[in-house]
Amino acid sequence: MMSSKPKINSRRLRALLDGVNGFGAGGTGGGFNRPGFSDADMAVRDWFAGEMAKDGLAVTRDGANSVFGRYGDAEVPSIMVGSHLDTVVDGGAFDGSLGVAVALECVRAMKQAGFEPSIPVEVVATSEEEGRFGGMLGAQAIAGLVTPEWLANAADADGVLLSDAMRAQGLDPQAVMNAARPAGSVRGFLELHIEQGPVLEREGLAIGLPEGATGILNLQVTLKGTANHSGTTPMDMRADAFAGLAEIATQIPAMIEKSRSDIARITIGKVELFPNHPHTVPGEAVFSVIIRDASETVMRGLQTLFGYVTAVSAEAHGLAYEIEEKSFIPPVAFNADLVNLLSEAAGQLSLPAKRMISGAGHDAQTMMALCPSAMIFIPSRNGISHAPEEYSEWADIEKGAELMLAVLLRLCSN
Amino acid sequence: MMSSKPKINSRRLRALLDGVNGFGAGGTGGGFNRPGFSDADMAVRDWFAGEMAKDGLAVTRDGANSVFGRYGDAEVPSIMVGSHLDTVVDGGAFDGSLGVAVALECVRAMKQAGFEPSIPVEVVATSEEEGRFGGMLGAQAIAGLVTPEWLANAADADGVLLSDAMRAQGLDPQAVMNAARPAGSVRGFLELHIEQGPVLEREGLAIGLPEGATGILNLQVTLKGTANHSGTTPMDMRADAFAGLAEIATQIPAMIEKSRSDIARITIGKVELFPNHPHTVPGEAVFSVIIRDASETVMRGLQTLFGYVTAVSAEAHGLAYEIEEKSFIPPVAFNADLVNLLSEAAGQLSLPAKRMISGAGHDAQTMMALCPSAMIFIPSRNGISHAPEEYSEWADIEKGAELMLAVLLRLCSN
Repeated sequence: MMSSKPKINSRRLRALLDGVNGFGAGGTGGGFNRPGFSDADMAVRDWFAGEMAKDGLAVTRDGANSVFGRYGDAEVPSIMVGSHLDTVVDGGAFDGSLGVAVALECVRAMKQAGFEPSIPVEVVATSEEEGRFGGMLGAQAIAGLVTPEWLANAADADGVLLSDAMRAQGLDPQAVMNAARPAGSVRGFLELHIEQGPVLEREGLAIGLPEGATGILNLQVTLKGTANHSGTTPMDMRADAFAGLAEIATQIPAMIEKSRSDIARITIGKVELFPNHPHTVPGEAVFSVIIRDASETVMRGLQTLFGYVTAVSAEAHGLAYEIEEKSFIPPVAFNADLVNLLSEAAGQLSLPAKRMISGAGHDAQTMMALCPSAMIFIPSRNGISHAPEEYSEWADIEKGAELMLAVLLRLCSN
Repeated sequence: MMSSKPKINSRRLRALLDGVNGFGAGGTGGGFNRPGFSDADMAVRDWFAGEMAKDGLAVTRDGANSVFGRYGDAEVPSIMVGSHLDTVVDGGAFDGSLGVAVALECVRAMKQAGFEPSIPVEVVATSEEEGRFGGMLGAQAIAGLVTPEWLANAADADGVLLSDAMRAQGLDPQAVMNAARPAGSVRGFLELHIEQGPVLEREGLAIGLPEGATGILNLQVTLKGTANHSGTTPMDMRADAFAGLAEIATQIPAMIEKSRSDIARITIGKVELFPNHPHTVPGEAVFSVIIRDASETVMRGLQTLFGYVTAVSAEAHGLAYEIEEKSFIPPVAFNADLVNLLSEAAGQLSLPAKRMISGAGHDAQTMMALCPSAMIFIPSRNGISHAPEEYSEWADIEKGAELMLAVLLRLCSN
């Protein structure tokens, strides 16, 4: 029974987010350090579980260390809402944390207004979303996507095994396999997150509604020429691996143009030359190529085109080349009904919203393997994330939280 | 008085070169390690001084540790001939060593034939030519180019001070300043050296006669954009420092073309991106640019052009930029009379010779500050040097040595 209309309490939400960021503060750049299974990550989960318990939610923790707080019937399939509490090293105050805080604030608003959901709401703080161990552990575990082989071998950049990191915190790695939710036990998943890009800010909009997330194709290209003396080797007798790379890189805009996709992206982010000495013509260049789009066809087309351009440029510069596919994550489409529902609700709240594609990876795309999922984006100042400068305006946060609450009220009242 | 025509003894020359390369053998790649003032460098000098003493030459060592063996009148200005005995780390068997061995072989040939020069011949093994401490120490000391400030501050890549490295070998760094030869005390300097480039081999010639050495202009360019998420940042909202660098690099052939110099060279050999992560648009690129030509005007013109292209490309990609001139070594012309004399002598020996420009730095260009100097180049297989694969055909070495002997006989008989 409802005594008043549930309403986001901005001050309470802010205090909750500040509470989360009381853990792992003091990064070298002024950011936050809560990598998955670090002491700070364990501590923030204990604290957050405690907050939910104080709110009267039924608090549980699964084998991957994701934390849940259920409001409503224990036996009925839930609507899950949340995000993650872990951060990258020296990360920002909003990535993940905001979505978790908004989820709990929505439930607090419901409770304060005396709203009792016919379909239970389950707040979640997923575990290890940032990929310290190479995956999106919490959501993958919930969705039943973790394999025993992966679990045994997953390690961080320093070579620390996931299983050892869990044991060091008194957790049993084998329990990860028990975290999988049965099919049908979750009716839907919603996640509010900062955009981590500049599009909403540029367009002056508070709300983005991702229709999907781009796939990620990770290539490593090696060009091999001949390292020679920069003084004694005439320009026309060089096999300059860097000159070949430069020729390839300048053709990226033309490749994007050919793809006819306005969200296709090709990035050369990492380059290593050998011997990398000012007075030596580079004999070898090894570089990363990340191809992203919302369509696998477009991605594979760009891969073919990139290979063709590489072959032609290598030939022109007398270079041998090799292209290795390091990994491929296919694009994901979010649930159209949920996206439409978010869009309608935004309209009712008079919040102009942009349908877009997420360029970053999120729990919601992994959860699509278990249940219908969708997201709400709010703007990131200057598009910056994964850095202490990460910031979102409080006015935008409030709008995003109001939208989440409105949609949850509709989904849980059925 | 001459009893027979002096003639190069190929077997003796080879044994001498092998003797030199008995020191510092066993580099990780199969090359030689005789960096300046290393134990191997000290030992090879002692051994070589001993060889010259056995030949009856008047052996001396200057304050920079260059070793001299004089054949002829002690009071008369000499013709100096030689090169260096130090190597880069894991260097080849010919760079420097061959020129020193040929110099002593020429004197041995003279002595064996009973030729007594009216102008004394002074064999030299210069000290620290490879620039472990950033200079060309032995030749600079002889030519009076070392300043006390440089001497006090010169350090190697590991931060070891030249002065400490000398003291560790029982040498007095201050004595370097006494190594300067008085003006007029050396009538000329000749150096045989491997080409270290592919030109003679390509043209099928045994002899190259450098008319000069290119200057070296060393620039460091910094491009600053914005490091952003490769997935969330649209292509048209990027300030990608690597994209800017690639655009600049692809314009190098057009710059060379504009210079109208067929020996102009521009090399980007060292590139560092920040953060250099596959999934991040590069926010900063720092790279080296080495501009070389035999004309300072051409070099400065290319510097201006490179600056212009950098400014335009930076603007197009939304980047800030900075170009720092790290160092400038002006081009040097060798003594035309000596080059002509070498050319004539080559003709008399029926050795086709190519007049060319040295792209590498050599003692001879530094010696130009003291006396007329010139060089003989012999081919390098595949143009490779500063590596264990460095190799020159023995037939070519013999031709180069015969030419050196012929010219010395003419210069010392006046």
